[in-house]
Amino acid sequence: MTKTDAGRFFEDFRIGEVLRHATPRTVTEGDRALYTALTGSRFALHSSDEFARALGLPRAPIDDLLVFHLVFGRTVADVSLNAVANLGYAACIFGVPVYPGDTLSAESEVIGLRETSSGKTGVVHVRSTGTNQRGETVLDYVRWVMVNKRDSAAPAPAPIAPELPEAAAPEDLVLPAGLDLAGYDPVLAGSDHFFDDYAVGERIDHLDGVTIEEAEHQMATRLYQNTARVHFNLHAAKDSRFGRRIVYGGHIISLARALSFNGLANAFRLAAINGGRHVAPSFAGDTIYAWSEVLGKFDLPGRTDLGALRLRTVAVKDRACADFPYRGPDGKPDPAVVLDLDYTVLVPRR
Amino acid sequence: MTKTDAGRFFEDFRIGEVLRHATPRTVTEGDRALYTALTGSRFALHSSDEFARALGLPRAPIDDLLVFHLVFGRTVADVSLNAVANLGYAACIFGVPVYPGDTLSAESEVIGLRETSSGKTGVVHVRSTGTNQRGETVLDYVRWVMVNKRDSAAPAPAPIAPELPEAAAPEDLVLPAGLDLAGYDPVLAGSDHFFDDYAVGERIDHLDGVTIEEAEHQMATRLYQNTARVHFNLHAAKDSRFGRRIVYGGHIISLARALSFNGLANAFRLAAINGGRHVAPSFAGDTIYAWSEVLGKFDLPGRTDLGALRLRTVAVKDRACADFPYRGPDGKPDPAVVLDLDYTVLVPRR
Amino acid sequence: MTKTDAGRFFEDFRIGEVLRHATPRTVTEGDRALYTALTGSRFALHSSDEFARALGLPRAPIDDLLVFHLVFGRTVADVSLNAVANLGYAACIFGVPVYPGDTLSAESEVIGLRETSSGKTGVVHVRSTGTNQRGETVLDYVRWVMVNKRDSAAPAPAPIAPELPEAAAPEDLVLPAGLDLAGYDPVLAGSDHFFDDYAVGERIDHLDGVTIEEAEHQMATRLYQNTARVHFNLHAAKDSRFGRRIVYGGHIISLARALSFNGLANAFRLAAINGGRHVAPSFAGDTIYAWSEVLGKFDLPGRTDLGALRLRTVAVKDRACADFPYRGPDGKPDPAVVLDLDYTVLVPRR
Repeated sequence: MTKTDAGRFFEDFRIGEVLRHATPRTVTEGDRALYTALTGSRFALHSSDEFARALGLPRAPIDDLLVFHLVFGRTVADVSLNAVANLGYAACIFGVPVYPGDTLSAESEVIGLRETSSGKTGVVHVRSTGTNQRGETVLDYVRWVMVNKRDSAAPAPAPIAPELPEAAAPEDLVLPAGLDLAGYDPVLAGSDHFFDDYAVGERIDHLDGVTIEEAEHQMATRLYQNTARVHFNLHAAKDSRFGRRIVYGGHIISLARALSFNGLANAFRLAAINGGRHVAPSFAGDTIYAWSEVLGKFDLPGRTDLGALRLRTVAVKDRACADFPYRGPDGKPDPAVVLDLDYTVLVPRR
Repeated sequence: MTKTDAGRFFEDFRIGEVLRHATPRTVTEGDRALYTALTGSRFALHSSDEFARALGLPRAPIDDLLVFHLVFGRTVADVSLNAVANLGYAACIFGVPVYPGDTLSAESEVIGLRETSSGKTGVVHVRSTGTNQRGETVLDYVRWVMVNKRDSAAPAPAPIAPELPEAAAPEDLVLPAGLDLAGYDPVLAGSDHFFDDYAVGERIDHLDGVTIEEAEHQMATRLYQNTARVHFNLHAAKDSRFGRRIVYGGHIISLARALSFNGLANAFRLAAINGGRHVAPSFAGDTIYAWSEVLGKFDLPGRTDLGALRLRTVAVKDRACADFPYRGPDGKPDPAVVLDLDYTVLVPRR
Repeated sequence: MTKTDAGRFFEDFRIGEVLRHATPRTVTEGDRALYTALTGSRFALHSSDEFARALGLPRAPIDDLLVFHLVFGRTVADVSLNAVANLGYAACIFGVPVYPGDTLSAESEVIGLRETSSGKTGVVHVRSTGTNQRGETVLDYVRWVMVNKRDSAAPAPAPIAPELPEAAAPEDLVLPAGLDLAGYDPVLAGSDHFFDDYAVGERIDHLDGVTIEEAEHQMATRLYQNTARVHFNLHAAKDSRFGRRIVYGGHIISLARALSFNGLANAFRLAAINGGRHVAPSFAGDTIYAWSEVLGKFDLPGRTDLGALRLRTVAVKDRACADFPYRGPDGKPDPAVVLDLDYTVLVPRR
């Protein structure tokens, strides 16, 4: 019997099953530095201990998306090693902040199963939870993936689909304990646009583009200990549909978030991801641009110092975003779009 | 009105104006590790806490050029986003050492303005200052850039050019508090050549060459949170003069300094940059070599344990430096030269 | 007289000579993060402080191979700058664990010299020792390299070859002080295969492959401050035998060890390298696969909680390992094999 794990197939998942993932991960300043070098993130809260202390936090928390990728990375070996496609994310709430020295663990519960019409694959929904060494939740999200069946003749399970909220409710968002924006310095943050200044429907072109190199996306994905094969193996990819390595979709999310600094520098914390879809794959050599639209504005219970913006950020490849590419006249995604992300950020009020 | 910042144009600068730059930056061991991985620096003082303690310092200070790049990186969004060319540096003094955990902030004062004869661009001089969380100066330097005008019909300001010293005077150099070279171990430092052994006019071929990859210069430049567009965007660069991404000139300075270890391993601290010029752009695929010349030797007030060497280090691409390429018979730079750096280092005496 | 060091030639080595190497190195969380990003290592002990504490250690030790590369890196400038080939390793024992903040120094004793029949090169054996800031040994190993002679007419020294053990004896292995596997969690470690479950002669295909990029191997090798020229200089390599930069062999060892997680996740510590050979060079663009064979099983004196496995791990390029490629019918290495590593790991018992 082999000692290697070839990953789970669709038949291996059972509703209600809880998978405890391997390789707990202590997060460090080393991870933060690499995240900066790989994504170009410039948000002051994650860059400066002093800026964080001025807001009542003990030091600079780890970038929210770095936490997301680290938790996600734990789940891959058990959930998506045989995934054909990473279909989407939803119901993602960022919990207590993560600081250097914290150790993250993750587990996933199977909450949805549905065989596809071809009989060769199935869609698996999991709710994954990341916790720190004190058992506090740092992240909680649902994702669904299309997974190969080991044996296409295996019987289909009764289809179960989880109910998912359209977007996080303001009262579900987690604010870091002690957070107080009285000491917020917009010059150091890089923007004088506050919550009050954004309007629903407003669109923002983030202007810049950044070209992805193979070494960059491989290093990012390995930093997260995400072992999905499609990102690393050119020898095998040569015979695949795309003939090349595919960039981890989360890397695109991070690049888009980093680009969004220009226009959204005061969106100092990701509070939720309401829905996310990798519309098309990205490859080394692609240049990623991004634009955002304000989908909603929300007061937060008991807070006069900040509010929540619901945003759509769209990442696009090899094309500037002055005209906000999204869908064609036929309603289909513009062929340049690679990411459609609906999420909620915290922004200080004037 | 757009919320994105397209950068300042020549008309936007006013003499005497002080720009406080965004995104303060806590420096960490993660930054140091990346700097080592990206440049190959081997100077013992920056590599070993024990070596630093033997010299009276609390632990290994952050590499001087990493401090330079981090301070420089803060200034880009306000100073040089629309720069046509980064023309030069001068009057750069390294201040108190930076240690992991220190948080750096930067501001720049506009000290020179001169429209160019074309009327389409202007030269802006800024004095930029980096400070730590205690307000101590870690770096102070002047740079000048050629910046596009928004409107070529805009009137030219009265030309003002700052006076710049030819080189830092010995009494202007900042020695780290507590520094005592009695415990200096030349074997661990990697060289038995002391201050006493260098002669003015002496030239040193640093022998090795190192080839630059796109991922490397992009990661370095992002680590510094330097967002100048020309370094990252292949899609836009395709239509530019060079058709490719340009390597951040500071990366070349760091590579040249790392190469200079072979011959200058005891130049344990950069004390000043007297003048620097990126003679030609560098691109991924270029192999950088370097050589140095001793321009001057200086005693330091009250110190018998160390002296200062004024050096010229020349970086060259795709060509070894046994013959010290610099200028052709016509006085023009040798076409292989990419960097001409005049700086001052501290070196122990016997 | 030049101040640069062109490296030692065969004539420069003397039996019994001890070389103290330059640039002591403080190891940090930054190094760990980069090692993860560059190799994809997922072993829980090196990833999680909490996992390490559950085993009686103060925090997560630095990955054993990262320690190896850092010690090795120190030795290059004095031992192998003019090496034609890195012929092998043996008698390598990992000593006390290394933790972030420890500072490593290295020295090498020349223990073997033999001129080759061509008269143009010689084989040098050195025993290299890495120590921490308390003088404790963290690593001790023998390697031998083929080094150019400066002058082929120089007389050959009397040939001296060190005696080398075939493999480390169980009683020679160093167990971390305080190590107690009672708290070992195989789910977090990623495998339910214990010492008891492995059989001598068993072979394991590690399944995955990972493609090497130039930026990755250069960054890894620079992180280790290993300055061997063949890894960095494309301009010079163009005229060499291979026409390209050669990947540092240690990077292949690290990739193979990281791949071996799939099948050997409980091999939580490298205790010894009995012998290692880089069978063929690797280059950027190669996809590395690996498989392992269990060569031996050993009880450890006084321990019922763990045992030692002697393993052979073979790294292969551009070819999956389902059929365990090793030697052809002629006894020669399979042309795809790049690494043949014989080493000893610690594994918990049930």
